[in-house]
Amino acid sequence: MALTEFELIARYFTRAGRERQGVGDDCALIDVGDQTLAITTDSLTERVHFFPDVDPASLGHKALAVSLSDLAAAGARPRCFLLALSLPRAQEGWLDAFSRAMFALADSAGCELIGGDTTRAPRIADQDGPVTICITAIGEVDRSFLRGRAGARAGDDLWVSGELGAAALAVAHAQGQIRLDSAQLQECLRRLDWPQPRVALGIALRGVASAAVDVSDGLLADLTHLTERSGVGACVHVPQVPRSEMLRTIDTQLQRRCVLAGGDDYELLFTASPDDREAVATAGRECCIAITRIGTMTRELGLRLTGDAGIDATLRGFDHFAGTREA
Amino acid sequence: MALTEFELIARYFTRAGRERQGVGDDCALIDVGDQTLAITTDSLTERVHFFPDVDPASLGHKALAVSLSDLAAAGARPRCFLLALSLPRAQEGWLDAFSRAMFALADSAGCELIGGDTTRAPRIADQDGPVTICITAIGEVDRSFLRGRAGARAGDDLWVSGELGAAALAVAHAQGQIRLDSAQLQECLRRLDWPQPRVALGIALRGVASAAVDVSDGLLADLTHLTERSGVGACVHVPQVPRSEMLRTIDTQLQRRCVLAGGDDYELLFTASPDDREAVATAGRECCIAITRIGTMTRELGLRLTGDAGIDATLRGFDHFAGTREA
Repeated sequence: MALTEFELIARYFTRAGRERQGVGDDCALIDVGDQTLAITTDSLTERVHFFPDVDPASLGHKALAVSLSDLAAAGARPRCFLLALSLPRAQEGWLDAFSRAMFALADSAGCELIGGDTTRAPRIADQDGPVTICITAIGEVDRSFLRGRAGARAGDDLWVSGELGAAALAVAHAQGQIRLDSAQLQECLRRLDWPQPRVALGIALRGVASAAVDVSDGLLADLTHLTERSGVGACVHVPQVPRSEMLRTIDTQLQRRCVLAGGDDYELLFTASPDDREAVATAGRECCIAITRIGTMTRELGLRLTGDAGIDATLRGFDHFAGTREA
Repeated sequence: MALTEFELIARYFTRAGRERQGVGDDCALIDVGDQTLAITTDSLTERVHFFPDVDPASLGHKALAVSLSDLAAAGARPRCFLLALSLPRAQEGWLDAFSRAMFALADSAGCELIGGDTTRAPRIADQDGPVTICITAIGEVDRSFLRGRAGARAGDDLWVSGELGAAALAVAHAQGQIRLDSAQLQECLRRLDWPQPRVALGIALRGVASAAVDVSDGLLADLTHLTERSGVGACVHVPQVPRSEMLRTIDTQLQRRCVLAGGDDYELLFTASPDDREAVATAGRECCIAITRIGTMTRELGLRLTGDAGIDATLRGFDHFAGTREA
C-alpha cells in the first residue's frame, strides 16, 4: 500500500475552492450571509475505531464526541448534527443505549440531531458487516476570531489541555502489549470510551489561540499537521507533556509511545503568543481544565523533541493506510 | 428483526427540535441569519447499495448524485459537500476514477468538496470489509419557497419527472430474475449507475410544487412518506406512471414491481395545485425533462392504485431492515 491517508487526501481530494476553509483542517468554514459555520465529518468503524463488544452507550457518546472535538478546535459553538448509521441488525437494547448516550452528550453541548440515514451492514463470509457511524456536525464560529491549523507563528507557545496517553494505553492492553490491573484499565478505558470534547475551552480560547488542533491521531501527528499548515516548526519538551500519575508508573518506552503517538485523547493542542499566557490560564480556569505549556513554535521547520534521552524520533501517530493498528 | 428502518428512526432518533426542519424529510433546514440551508446525509455501502465489482467512476458519480437528489427535492441550490470514505486499501486507479467522476458531477452542480474523513475498512473473516461512502451535502434554499414532504394538499396533482423502473430492472437481472439482452442491460445499468439528480428542476419548481420527494426507495414507498408527512392520501393511475419503451416489453408483473417499488430512480415525485399545470409544464420544458401527471392527492388517507387489473396492493419499496434485497 503505497499511499498514506494524507497523501491520498492530498492527491485525490484536495482542490482550490471558493469557500473560506476547505479540506485539510479539523473543520471546513463557510460564510452564510454575515455568519460563518464550521462543519466537520467523521466516521467510526467497528474493528478499526472500536471493538465489536464495545458498550453501545460509550459508542454513542464517542461518535458524537469526536466531531464536537473538531468543532472545539475551531472554536465553534455546536449547533446541530447528522447521523448516518450502518448496522447488521436493529437490536432494540443496543439502539436504546446508543441513542440515549448520544443525545445526553448532544443535549449537554446544545447540539441538535437534524437528519440522518440508516442502512444495513452487509454480511461478509457469513459474518456481520461492521457497524459504521458517520457524523457530520455543524457549529457557529465568531468571524472576528477564526481559528484553524494554519495560524501558528514562530515564537508562539505550544499548549495542550488535560492529559495524554491513557486511551492509547487501553489499546495497548487490549493488544496484549501490557497487563494493566483492574483500576488502571478502568481509568484508561474511561479515557478511550468516554472522551470529553473540549467545547467550552475551544470557545474560551477565541481570540487567544493562534492555531489549534484536537489530538485524535496522536500528539506528534497532529502537531505535524498544525506545523505544516502554519509553515513553522515546533520544539516539544517531552517531560512537560502532561500524563496521569498512573501513566508515569508504566514502562518508559510504552509511556512515551502512548503520550506522543497514542491518539484518541481528544484534548486541544494549541498555540498562543507568549503575551497571552495569562489569558490562556484564565480560559483553563474558567473551564476547569488543566492546561500545560509543552513547547515553542520555531522558524525552523519540523519537530524537535527535547528533555528525554534516547527518544525514538520515528514515533508517529495513527495513519489509516499505514495499517499500524487494528482493534 | 422486529423494527423497520422507519420505526427505528421514529423510535430512537426523532425528537422535537428547534431547527426549521429536522429528521424525517429529504433535507434538514436550518436558518443562518437571513438565509436557510438544506442539509442531507447519505451513505452507500458495498454489497447493499452497489456490487463489489462496480465501476469506481459510476460509484463516485452516484454517491454524490443521491445527495444532490435530496437537495433537488427541497429545491435547494447545491453549495458544498463533505465525503467520508472507508476503503479496504488505497488503490490509485480506483481512487483516480472515483474522484474524477465525483468532481465532474460536483463541478456541473456547482458543489464544492470542503472536507471529509478517510478511514480503512476492517478485514472480516479474511475478506475485505465493505467500501462505504458517506456524503453530506449542503444547499441554499429560498426562504420564500420552502418545500419538503409535508406540503401536499388534497386535490393537488401528483407528478413525476423522467421515467421509473429501469434501475430496478438492472438489479432484477443481476439477481437472475430476468435475462436482459445486452442493449437492454446497458440502458438499465446506465440508469442504475449514473442517475441524474434533478437539481435544475428542483429549483425551477420553487413556488410551484407544494411538496416533493426524490424516488430513491421506490415510487410507492416514497409517495407513502410524502402522504404521511402531509396528512393526505393519494390515488395513482398506474398506466400513467412513465417507463421506457424497453420496460414496456417485459413481463407485466416484473414491470409493475420495478416501476412502483423498484427504487434507485432519483426522479422527483411532487405535488402541485391544478392551477399550476402550466407552470409545471414550463419548468419541465426549461429543464428538458419530461414530467408526467400520474394521480391526485386525496383527503382519504392511504394509497389507491387504479387502472391496472390485478395489481398487487402489497407492493412496497426498499426497507433496509426488512432485508428484501442484497446486491
